Amino acid sequence: MEYQFVLNFKVRDYECDLQGIVNNSVYQNYLEHARHEFLLERGVDFAALARDKINLVVTRAELDYLTSLTSGDEFWVGVNVERVSKVRFAFHQHIFRSRDDKPVLRAVVTGTSLNERGRPTSLDALSQLFDPVS
Amino acid sequence: MEYQFVLNFKVRDYECDLQGIVNNSVYQNYLEHARHEFLLERGVDFAALARDKINLVVTRAELDYLTSLTSGDEFWVGVNVERVSKVRFAFHQHIFRSRDDKPVLRAVVTGTSLNERGRPTSLDALSQLFDPVS
Amino acid sequence: MEYQFVLNFKVRDYECDLQGIVNNSVYQNYLEHARHEFLLERGVDFAALARDKINLVVTRAELDYLTSLTSGDEFWVGVNVERVSKVRFAFHQHIFRSRDDKPVLRAVVTGTSLNERGRPTSLDALSQLFDPVS
Amino acid sequence: MEYQFVLNFKVRDYECDLQGIVNNSVYQNYLEHARHEFLLERGVDFAALARDKINLVVTRAELDYLTSLTSGDEFWVGVNVERVSKVRFAFHQHIFRSRDDKPVLRAVVTGTSLNERGRPTSLDALSQLFDPVS
Repeated sequence: MEYQFVLNFKVRDYECDLQGIVNNSVYQNYLEHARHEFLLERGVDFAALARDKINLVVTRAELDYLTSLTSGDEFWVGVNVERVSKVRFAFHQHIFRSRDDKPVLRAVVTGTSLNERGRPTSLDALSQLFDPVS
Repeated sequence: MEYQFVLNFKVRDYECDLQGIVNNSVYQNYLEHARHEFLLERGVDFAALARDKINLVVTRAELDYLTSLTSGDEFWVGVNVERVSKVRFAFHQHIFRSRDDKPVLRAVVTGTSLNERGRPTSLDALSQLFDPVS
Repeated sequence: MEYQFVLNFKVRDYECDLQGIVNNSVYQNYLEHARHEFLLERGVDFAALARDKINLVVTRAELDYLTSLTSGDEFWVGVNVERVSKVRFAFHQHIFRSRDDKPVLRAVVTGTSLNERGRPTSLDALSQLFDPVS
Repeated sequence: MEYQFVLNFKVRDYECDLQGIVNNSVYQNYLEHARHEFLLERGVDFAALARDKINLVVTRAELDYLTSLTSGDEFWVGVNVERVSKVRFAFHQHIFRSRDDKPVLRAVVTGTSLNERGRPTSLDALSQLFDPVS
């Protein structure tokens, strides 16, 4: 499968919980960081938008946990994005363990952009996300 | 709606991100803590099981984000559980803001228990979860 | 010892790391939450100040780790504050395990308030912190 | 100044709090990850030791916060270690912002190794940490 964007990570020990594996919630951190780096590469700066009162927010997340990551594991996150409506977009994000490309997690994260009054708003800057896979 | 278990929380400032609202991943922390407290009330100790190499793990999470929580907000998490197969159970978890009972998040978190070899296993202790709402 | 403010907590499982004990960094979360609740009780709202571009920041933290907290532990944080200069204040914060009042952590956290240009500034609102132990 | 070990990082947006800067507690995450990668390079695996009931623990941390990191910042952590007693060692860790090498944080983190009974114990494996700067 081809991805519009790929980011490499390594598990940090503090991300593991008392089961000795990466805690469930931490995968959302990984996914968010991969999305924001992807956005940045396309010229969309999440933090700068927030300072301008434009908030990119998640409205739904579906996560399938397939394999656990543990201390020392390297992994990568692949990201694709699709427009699902004028104001809604869906990130398809897959995590794989690097040493054997074993699937770790599959996620669909749907988001929208909110203007200063908290209303969904179409953001021109986001149109550059939907270029075909390079 | 009736819940088998309810737990009260208050947002802590470090849980808010640069948008000034609780970060997406943190809701999974809230949901996990509510589940573990519910389990404990029913006699199932997540941490003790982990020490005995029985791991309760999440296999799928679906989260609908409805309203953002922010600094100072008090909220509560309602939990119901249903058995979806011999080895799989689904937690239905809803978060509400306390001051107005506004819905904040709706989640379905599916889990299973893994034995020492990582195989899904039926855990007698979990049968006490499926009592009717008290 | 008497404290100006005391806050009760319970360890949440996601706060424990692969050693099965609360991760070192998490104690700073506990300390921060206790400080902010103390400030709030005295009429100082950290988040509201941040929105007004007044940032209360930590300039130094000294933490002595005495006993580890683990899954299920209840504990409390005692807080005292002293003014160390016109623009600097020091929080003395002690954590104790509730079931036996065993000392868990001793910390001195020094902070200041920065104005919009990032300069240390004297904040009238903070004077109410330095009332004697009630 | 020379360091025995250096590790590069980039701030992730979820590490920033409602002030828009990296939260105080997160620097301890950075420091821990840099220490564990340093240990690993010298053949000491924190997670493997934990599985063998040898726990490397922090007994004291002193952190001076000099400059705040914010969204998008790249930075590096320099690590030196010194033996302070038969069973105690001190990590001197300095964080610098990459684009201008501005000092961000200076820390001394003192630790020891505990055996299965929780007693400080001399660990031969740690002797390799104290080689001179390479």
